[in-house]
Amino acid sequence: MGTASARCPLGISAPEHGELRVLHPQLEFSRFYKSSKWEDLRVKLYSMSVSTTNSSKGMVPCISALPEVGDFFWEKAPTPILDMVDTPIHLKNLSPKELKQLADEIRSELSFMMSKTRKPFKASLAVVELTVAIHHVFHAPMDKILWDDGEQSYAHKILTGRRSLMHTVRQKNGLSAFTSRSESEYDPFGAGHGCNSVSAGLGMAVARDIKRKRDRIVTVITNQTIMAGQIYEAMSNAGYLDSNMVVILNDSQHSLHPKLEEGPKTAINALSSTLSKLQSSKSFRKLREAAKGVTKRIGSGMHELAAKVDEYARGMVGPLGSTLFEELGLYYIGPVDGHNMEDLISVLQDVASLDSTGPVLVHVITEEYQGSEDDQMSEVAVKHQGQLNVDSLPSYPKLTGSSLSWTYSDFFVEALVAEAEKDSNIVTVHAGMGMDPSLQPFKERFPDKFFDVGMAEQHAVTFSAGLSCGGLKPFCIIPSAFLQRAFDQVVHDVDRQRIPVRFVITSAGLVGSDGPLHCGGFDITIMSLLPNMIVMAPSDENELVHMVATAAQIDDRPVCFRYPRGAIVGLNSSVCEGVALEIGKGRVLAQGKDVALLGYGAMVQNCLKAHSLLSSLGIKVTVADARFCKPLDINLVRQLCENHAILITVEEGSVGGFGSHVAQFIALEGQLDGRVKWRPIILPDNYIEHGTPKEQLSLAGLTGHHIAATALSLLGRTRDALLLMR
Amino acid sequence: MGTASARCPLGISAPEHGELRVLHPQLEFSRFYKSSKWEDLRVKLYSMSVSTTNSSKGMVPCISALPEVGDFFWEKAPTPILDMVDTPIHLKNLSPKELKQLADEIRSELSFMMSKTRKPFKASLAVVELTVAIHHVFHAPMDKILWDDGEQSYAHKILTGRRSLMHTVRQKNGLSAFTSRSESEYDPFGAGHGCNSVSAGLGMAVARDIKRKRDRIVTVITNQTIMAGQIYEAMSNAGYLDSNMVVILNDSQHSLHPKLEEGPKTAINALSSTLSKLQSSKSFRKLREAAKGVTKRIGSGMHELAAKVDEYARGMVGPLGSTLFEELGLYYIGPVDGHNMEDLISVLQDVASLDSTGPVLVHVITEEYQGSEDDQMSEVAVKHQGQLNVDSLPSYPKLTGSSLSWTYSDFFVEALVAEAEKDSNIVTVHAGMGMDPSLQPFKERFPDKFFDVGMAEQHAVTFSAGLSCGGLKPFCIIPSAFLQRAFDQVVHDVDRQRIPVRFVITSAGLVGSDGPLHCGGFDITIMSLLPNMIVMAPSDENELVHMVATAAQIDDRPVCFRYPRGAIVGLNSSVCEGVALEIGKGRVLAQGKDVALLGYGAMVQNCLKAHSLLSSLGIKVTVADARFCKPLDINLVRQLCENHAILITVEEGSVGGFGSHVAQFIALEGQLDGRVKWRPIILPDNYIEHGTPKEQLSLAGLTGHHIAATALSLLGRTRDALLLMR
Repeated sequence: MGTASARCPLGISAPEHGELRVLHPQLEFSRFYKSSKWEDLRVKLYSMSVSTTNSSKGMVPCISALPEVGDFFWEKAPTPILDMVDTPIHLKNLSPKELKQLADEIRSELSFMMSKTRKPFKASLAVVELTVAIHHVFHAPMDKILWDDGEQSYAHKILTGRRSLMHTVRQKNGLSAFTSRSESEYDPFGAGHGCNSVSAGLGMAVARDIKRKRDRIVTVITNQTIMAGQIYEAMSNAGYLDSNMVVILNDSQHSLHPKLEEGPKTAINALSSTLSKLQSSKSFRKLREAAKGVTKRIGSGMHELAAKVDEYARGMVGPLGSTLFEELGLYYIGPVDGHNMEDLISVLQDVASLDSTGPVLVHVITEEYQGSEDDQMSEVAVKHQGQLNVDSLPSYPKLTGSSLSWTYSDFFVEALVAEAEKDSNIVTVHAGMGMDPSLQPFKERFPDKFFDVGMAEQHAVTFSAGLSCGGLKPFCIIPSAFLQRAFDQVVHDVDRQRIPVRFVITSAGLVGSDGPLHCGGFDITIMSLLPNMIVMAPSDENELVHMVATAAQIDDRPVCFRYPRGAIVGLNSSVCEGVALEIGKGRVLAQGKDVALLGYGAMVQNCLKAHSLLSSLGIKVTVADARFCKPLDINLVRQLCENHAILITVEEGSVGGFGSHVAQFIALEGQLDGRVKWRPIILPDNYIEHGTPKEQLSLAGLTGHHIAATALSLLGRTRDALLLMR
Repeated sequence: MGTASARCPLGISAPEHGELRVLHPQLEFSRFYKSSKWEDLRVKLYSMSVSTTNSSKGMVPCISALPEVGDFFWEKAPTPILDMVDTPIHLKNLSPKELKQLADEIRSELSFMMSKTRKPFKASLAVVELTVAIHHVFHAPMDKILWDDGEQSYAHKILTGRRSLMHTVRQKNGLSAFTSRSESEYDPFGAGHGCNSVSAGLGMAVARDIKRKRDRIVTVITNQTIMAGQIYEAMSNAGYLDSNMVVILNDSQHSLHPKLEEGPKTAINALSSTLSKLQSSKSFRKLREAAKGVTKRIGSGMHELAAKVDEYARGMVGPLGSTLFEELGLYYIGPVDGHNMEDLISVLQDVASLDSTGPVLVHVITEEYQGSEDDQMSEVAVKHQGQLNVDSLPSYPKLTGSSLSWTYSDFFVEALVAEAEKDSNIVTVHAGMGMDPSLQPFKERFPDKFFDVGMAEQHAVTFSAGLSCGGLKPFCIIPSAFLQRAFDQVVHDVDRQRIPVRFVITSAGLVGSDGPLHCGGFDITIMSLLPNMIVMAPSDENELVHMVATAAQIDDRPVCFRYPRGAIVGLNSSVCEGVALEIGKGRVLAQGKDVALLGYGAMVQNCLKAHSLLSSLGIKVTVADARFCKPLDINLVRQLCENHAILITVEEGSVGGFGSHVAQFIALEGQLDGRVKWRPIILPDNYIEHGTPKEQLSLAGLTGHHIAATALSLLGRTRDALLLMR
């Protein structure tokens, strides 16, 4: 439990549990932030504080986006200590009490910004004390602080010179939502996909040893990322190489067991505080080192026994699960109360002062910030929609009324539930960074057929293959960027064995504010590489529903389809009935004669926009929806080549994908030997930074205007093309 | 230690430690196989046995390939019990003693075949008893037996109806070197890349539960595969889902610690036999189940304590490391002597008879077969050379004399050592299935700068990124097929952050007898997808040396190069000095005017062959070596387009790679609008089964003849093309 508490010059009385109580802006957070009254207060407090926002620090007031102003008037909490901190060096001489207050000020500032910008800073709230303690004890940027989960690094960003830019997070040209080497020297490695920090940190530790330097490496991992196999590989290798590094597990689930929902949780009490201090103390470590040395000399039998006694003696005093790390070769210290500044500093100082330690795991228990339900809902909505304008905050989409706020995900889940009602063999496997909230309806309807394996994509894919071998029909749902982590499993455990697994690739293409980190630009290329895979993409929500039906029906080989984040096209107000498509059969949406636009997936919509633009200029355009990248509709492609002088393929994917498959076919057919002019429009060969979806699409050159301009140039109407792009 | 021993009608005396001793064909293996005398005997024994080989079982004598016949004459050991076993059902009524003898007969047969065919059956020798015990206790194919490492499945293949085809392993149209769903109903899942069996088995177990069936799932994992992150993800998920399945760890290193070289090893003794039997007994398990139930009801505090006591009480009796599995949620049983048939059967029967167990891990200790040094060397040579004719067995390549037996790997390592002598920042990281023996010279020269992380490719890549951030120059060496397992790490931890890591992609392209499992057909496509990556491939060994120098010099972005298995071109007798190439600059090897052949990597050699063929038909051919797929030498490509009517790109890779990058460029340049006829020659869109490299290349359509025929067809000389392909 957090024990942070500090005085402040202002006070106010608010009713809590029926009695009046004096409150301070630097609130006793841990006691308070679960209270629903706090929410009322918080909203009002922030509303009022806008007018006095310290705009010299770069925070631009944005009143229109704020909730209504109530009857409480208040200023944004003052941050006297934080205001004096520009870089971590300013933390060095602060007392534990001042550090506590600093943590409270940061939390207050983060909460304020979260409420103001509706950006998900939640994950960072739990690690404020930990971040302050780390920067107090270690000397960044000489010492390297690595975060496994970028969303926990906001307090770190505030303390490392980026406070005045925090409001720009996730905006074009603004701060990244994750750590970034190019953003700050205090970010020694980029986080984003999770689970990479121990590997990277170990590399830095080994490099330091080879170069005979003495900087220290600290990596912070989480309950989420600890599920990933790479963490295990890295910790095991760290134990083997025995380089000095500090791994801090920020445990907000109070459990070392990945995905443990029931069962024992680690408790924090007076005993654990004493124990963790004992474990981290020099004398205890030295004792252990000595014991290690002695037992090594004694020889194998005794060595084992001594090591065992050491392990179990120490294991008995640690929480259930702690020996996992010991087994991997890390020295376990914990559990430490992640909100108790004295404990954190004391343990980290011990750890930092030891010279020859090998890798150490510090187990820190934190309380996750629990917003009110309203707050959670709107967060879900923000996250869920991704691409929608965050200024207009619709409620969580329901299957009633207007379909305007629906996403592709909603349609997918509805369609999948409908298929699963008909076919009892349908099951789903989900992997990635956190569960997609739109999957909830399936989970509720078929709890026994829904498997969320967390950040374990490799396992998810092979597990799906096993389910399929057992006679079920698995839909394996993984965001495009995370499917990369299981590419080999898709190749060997599914495609090579021609096992019918249905891959549902979400967040395909550009992903707006998540930037290049979660960008799903490579899936078309890597999936259509595979000989047995059927690769398709819906051009609108109805097509998505049909593709779910198609995938359910295909049972002799693997299949995949991708869909983007964000809102649907909006064809009709309810989910249509899924009808299986003919494999490898595209469709023509508009018939012309001058130019053929062959779109794949969501880009068909942009082809239709280009069609409108070109039609208004008197150009007759054919628009075709390829539907399948593999098998390609060769009749359709051949026909387009034969009847048009110009063929433009359009996809929201990188080189080597749909366009390359078309080129391969038409080159071998001889269609490119002067018959047709082919132009591929694909994602450009660079990482597109975060921005709004519209900004990104424009940067990528994938808008209807770009497509139309390409056609105009080819037709020799360069002037029109230029006018269009003005 | 193995305890297998059996009588046989024949005897022979051989000198051992100075005294005469009666030997039996079914040898007391564990005592004997480490003796060097045994090798002398074995070679002679097998030499003689050729003449009486049971050719009705399909084993064709191959005397020419055998070592010289000595003064000992012997028949191949008779296999009376094995001869009666066609399917596992024939094992059911055998006594433990007969099962032991069966195991010995299988080992004898495997050793015989190994010596005769020089195929690496070594890994299977250690698990003969285990295989027999599994098939005695479980009921395949109803029960599913999954192998994590295909090379351990040969005894399994012999027992499941494939004995008569064992001599065809790794040959065209012969048995696969790994398990294969298409080969036998006794292979429920394909192994090959390792570490997938627990995921797949768990999927089958869950499917069984959903379908209310009662078959059992057994997966066998090894020390090698247990390093991989996927195993951890899978075991953790198995513990969470708590489905019944049996995971058997075949531990030939006597250690549960991945990569533990020093330190305690698990000993097998009378106590461990008793203990493992106790652990697997019904009453002990029931006690534990009951305790689980009770403690769950008591509530969180007590639950934790009870679980802890249970865990540590049991942990104390298990070997160091056993709690790792308990922490993940698997019930640990062991260690069990993997050569003691009674123990194996007793434990497996207990495990099989339990109804509600959740996942169980049985820790089996086996002794790996240690051949004589000669034997190992030639094994190394066979494995090492891969593509060379196995009939002529050259000694392990040395850097003296003829370079004919040298491989690309040898040249690479020589070049890397030379660079590392000059630049103290160069380090190497190696991952994949077992260490490439050709890397030994680097390891010996720079032991502190060589990191073999085993089957942990994801970690290897990010670890390399960390080393690079720490100021070193890492060369990350991973076979093409295994690099797929770290694709996401290459994207996000290296390329997106533009961190200079040098990827050395070995076993690129077709890999002969390893078939599609280790085929490296996808690396060009997936690496050249990446915006910051420099992608290159040497066309011969000198180019390889230069590319090592180039990669060492590039220090502002990541770079990769690929080279094939097998023998070099043979340009000169020693390694030349490496000179850094100009980035993105190809070269013209032959100047013609009719046809341009643009090769990438090793395929440049086949372009040169096509050049000879076409020259003899009077056609003037330009041959260019692209060197770089990214950045493409656009001047070279443009020039080839402008000066030739026909451009053929040739690569040993799949669609989306070099050819697609060329097409993307020339399409946007307008070169395809009737100026040049472009034809891409790539790997076909299917998995090419195992065979000799020559057979595979021919199947793939990538020989010089194929290239020449393509050119002839385009020139309208269809008859010549047909003649060429006859």
